[in-house]
Amino acid sequence: KIDGDRLWDSLMEMAKIGPGVAGGNNRQTLTDADAEGRSLFKSWCEEVGMTMGLDRMGNMFMRHEGSEPDLDPVYIGSHLDTQPTGGKYDGVLGVLAGLEVVRSIRDMGLQTRRPIVVVNWTNEEGTRFAPAMLASGVYAGMHDEDYANSREDAEGKRFGDELDRIGWRGTEDVGGRPMHCMFEYHIEQGPILEAEDRQIGVVTHGQGLWWLQVTLTGKDAHTGSTPMDMRVNAGLGMARITEAVHRIAMDHQPNAVGAVGQANVYPNSRNVIPGKAVFTIDFRSPDLEKLTSMRSALEAEATEIAADLGLGIEIEPVGHFDPVTFDADLAQSLRDAADRLGYSHRDIVSGAGHDACWINRVAPTVMIMCPCVDGLSHNEAEEISPEWASSGADVLLHAVLEAAEV
Amino acid sequence: KIDGDRLWDSLMEMAKIGPGVAGGNNRQTLTDADAEGRSLFKSWCEEVGMTMGLDRMGNMFMRHEGSEPDLDPVYIGSHLDTQPTGGKYDGVLGVLAGLEVVRSIRDMGLQTRRPIVVVNWTNEEGTRFAPAMLASGVYAGMHDEDYANSREDAEGKRFGDELDRIGWRGTEDVGGRPMHCMFEYHIEQGPILEAEDRQIGVVTHGQGLWWLQVTLTGKDAHTGSTPMDMRVNAGLGMARITEAVHRIAMDHQPNAVGAVGQANVYPNSRNVIPGKAVFTIDFRSPDLEKLTSMRSALEAEATEIAADLGLGIEIEPVGHFDPVTFDADLAQSLRDAADRLGYSHRDIVSGAGHDACWINRVAPTVMIMCPCVDGLSHNEAEEISPEWASSGADVLLHAVLEAAEV
Ligand SMILES: NC(=O)NCCC(=O)O
Ligand SMILES: NC(=O)NCCC(=O)O
Repeated sequence: KIDGDRLWDSLMEMAKIGPGVAGGNNRQTLTDADAEGRSLFKSWCEEVGMTMGLDRMGNMFMRHEGSEPDLDPVYIGSHLDTQPTGGKYDGVLGVLAGLEVVRSIRDMGLQTRRPIVVVNWTNEEGTRFAPAMLASGVYAGMHDEDYANSREDAEGKRFGDELDRIGWRGTEDVGGRPMHCMFEYHIEQGPILEAEDRQIGVVTHGQGLWWLQVTLTGKDAHTGSTPMDMRVNAGLGMARITEAVHRIAMDHQPNAVGAVGQANVYPNSRNVIPGKAVFTIDFRSPDLEKLTSMRSALEAEATEIAADLGLGIEIEPVGHFDPVTFDADLAQSLRDAADRLGYSHRDIVSGAGHDACWINRVAPTVMIMCPCVDGLSHNEAEEISPEWASSGADVLLHAVLEAAEV
Repeated sequence: KIDGDRLWDSLMEMAKIGPGVAGGNNRQTLTDADAEGRSLFKSWCEEVGMTMGLDRMGNMFMRHEGSEPDLDPVYIGSHLDTQPTGGKYDGVLGVLAGLEVVRSIRDMGLQTRRPIVVVNWTNEEGTRFAPAMLASGVYAGMHDEDYANSREDAEGKRFGDELDRIGWRGTEDVGGRPMHCMFEYHIEQGPILEAEDRQIGVVTHGQGLWWLQVTLTGKDAHTGSTPMDMRVNAGLGMARITEAVHRIAMDHQPNAVGAVGQANVYPNSRNVIPGKAVFTIDFRSPDLEKLTSMRSALEAEATEIAADLGLGIEIEPVGHFDPVTFDADLAQSLRDAADRLGYSHRDIVSGAGHDACWINRVAPTVMIMCPCVDGLSHNEAEEISPEWASSGADVLLHAVLEAAEV
C-alpha cells in the first residue's frame, strides 16, 4: 500500500498554490500559479531521483528509471491546472498519486524492469484556452502545434505566448515517446460511486463531447426608446438557444447531457439591448449517435431562432472527441488489484473528458476513479476523503507494479 | 439663430475625448476621460465669462450673469458622460447647445434679465453606477448622498471614491438652488421624428422605468459528469427569465418595452454549469399601470421559474421613476418658437430617462428633441445631422431668451 498520509499532505501542500476564494483553487493553466505548482511538483520528483523531460507544449515527463531502461515505460498522467473556481483534487490527485506510487516503490525497495513516467499534461481544463485536454491532444496527434499555440484566452492572450512567458516550454518533440501503457487516476466528478458506496471505479468508457461556440449578432440599441418591433436582441437569442440546449439534452435521455457554461452579452450595459452575444454549448454522451444527433438538432434549431429574431449567427466547434473505449486488459488488472486489496469496485463511464481519452489513441490506456462528495466538481467545494484518495492509489500501485514488471 | 458650425465643431472636439472602438465614445462617468471632458467644457465656458459652481455630487453649474443677478436663473442641462459603447450626441448635445446659446447671446450683444446656468449632471447613463440620472436624482431629493456615494461599479469601486479620485467633487450643497425653470435638449434616441420628417420634438411626457437586478443561486458543477436531474443551473434560470421579460413586455403592448441588458453567469467557464447568474431587467412605459403590472408579473413568474429549477432568487430594484408630465407652458413656448422659426414639430413622449425627469419635480421643466438616424442610440453608430442639431438649438435659444426675459 502507498503512504496515504504523505499523499494527502502533498495534496494539501499543492493546494496552497493558487488558492481560490472559497477553499478551492484557481490555478489556471499558464498562469504564474501554474508555474509555481509545476516547480513544486518537479522539486518533489527530483527528491526521489526522477529526471524531467519537457516538450514544446510544456508537458512534463518525470522519469523513474527501470532496471531495463530500454523497455517502453509505464506512464501515469493527469494535470495540475484547475478551473477558475476549481477543487483541490480534479487532476491534481492523479499527478500526485503517480508521484506517491514512485515514492512507495522506493520506500519498499522494489525495482521494476520498466521505467515509470509521471506526467503533468498542460491545459487539461480548457477554460482559459479551449479546447480541453489541449496538450495531450497535440501529443496524440489530434491537433497540430500551431493550432495549440494560437488558441486565445478571453483577454486575447495566446497559449504559445503564455507558455513562453511562464518559462515552461521545453524543446522535446511533442508525441512519439515509447509508451507501454498509461494509467490516469482521477476523482469521479459524478455521484455514482458515493451513492453506491464503492471505493473504486474501473473506467471502461468515456463520454464523447461537442463544444460549440455561438456568436449572435444583432444591434445595440436603447432599451427605453427602441420600440419592441425594431429590436434585434442578441441576448434574447442566447436565452432561447440556452433553453433549446437544455430541451435537446432532455430529449436524448438517458446518457446525454447539455448546458451553456460560458455566456457573455455585449456591451453588457443595463440600458442597452445586447447587440452581440457569445456563448459555449457543451453536449456529451457515451453514445456517438446521440452525440451527433444533439449537435445537429441544436444547429438546426439555433439557426431558426436566429432567423426569427433577425440575428446573424455563427457556430464554431471549439472542442470535440468521440466516445472512448479504454483498454480491456488494463481494466481487468485494476479489477484484480481491487479484489486483492479487498476494495469494493464497479465499472463506470467517465462523464468528463480526460487526457487519457486522447492518449488511449496512441497507447493502451485505462482510468481509475475514486468517489467525490455529492458528485460535486468544478466547484471550490469539491471534496474527497483521505481514505478514498489512498484506496485508489493502492490499486494504482498494484496495477503499475504489474504493468512495469516488478 | 445660433452658430451651427460652432456647435458642431464643439461636438466633434468633445468626441475626441474618450474615443470608442467604432467611431463613438467611451467616456463613462467618473473615469479619467470624464474628468478631461469636464475640463474642456469648463474652459470653453470660462472663455465666454461664465463662472462655475460645483456641488458635492460633481454637478457643474456654469453661470452666465443676468442684468438682474438676484432673479432665479434659467437652467439648461444635460450630461457629458456616455455609455461604454455610446454615441457622440446622447447628452453631450444638450450641454454644448446650452453653451452655444450663451455664446450666441453674447455674440448678438443681447442681455437677459435672468442669469442662465448651463449644467453638466453627473452619471446620467447609470451603466457604470446604477441607477441612471443619479446626481440629478440627489439634486431633486430622490436619493440621499450616502446612497449615491456608496453605489458600486462592476469592479467594486464606489461612486464617492471615484468622484474624489478624478478631483471633481465640489463643496456646494446638493439641491435647493433657486431655479426659474430648466430646459433639456436631447437627441430622440428613437425613430419617430426621422420617420415623420419633423425637425423638432416637444417632449410632453417621459416613460416611467423599473430596473430590477436579479441574482439566481444554483450550484457550480461539472457539465459532463453531473446527471441532468442533479443540476441546479442558474444560467438556465436566467435564460427563462429573459424570455419571460420579453413576453411580458409583448403582453403589455402598445407603449411598453422590456429587455435584459446586463447578463453575467459565474464562473463563466465552458465546462461548469453556472452556479450563479446576475442580470438586470429594464421595463418602461408611459402608463403607470402597465409599468407596475409588468413588474409584478415578472416577479411572480421569475419566482416560479427559480422554484422549478431549485434556484435561490433575489430581486433588487436598482432604478425607478414614475412616468413624467413636463411643464405645459414651457412646452407651448417651444411650439411657438418652432413655429416662429418655421421648423416642423410634433409632441412626443421620451422613451429614455433624462435628468429633466428628476428636475421636473423641483422646477418647471421641459425637453426638446431632435431626430437621430434610424432611431439608433446607445450604439457607437449613433448619428445626427448638423442641421438637426442646430434647428433644435435655435428653438432652445428662442425659448430660453423668452424665459430669461431678454
Ligand atoms: N476532468 C475534467 O474536468 N476535464 C475537463 C474537461 C472536461 O470538461 O471534461
Ligand atoms: N437618455 C438616456 O439614455 N439616459 C440613460 C437612462 C436611460 O436608460 O433612460
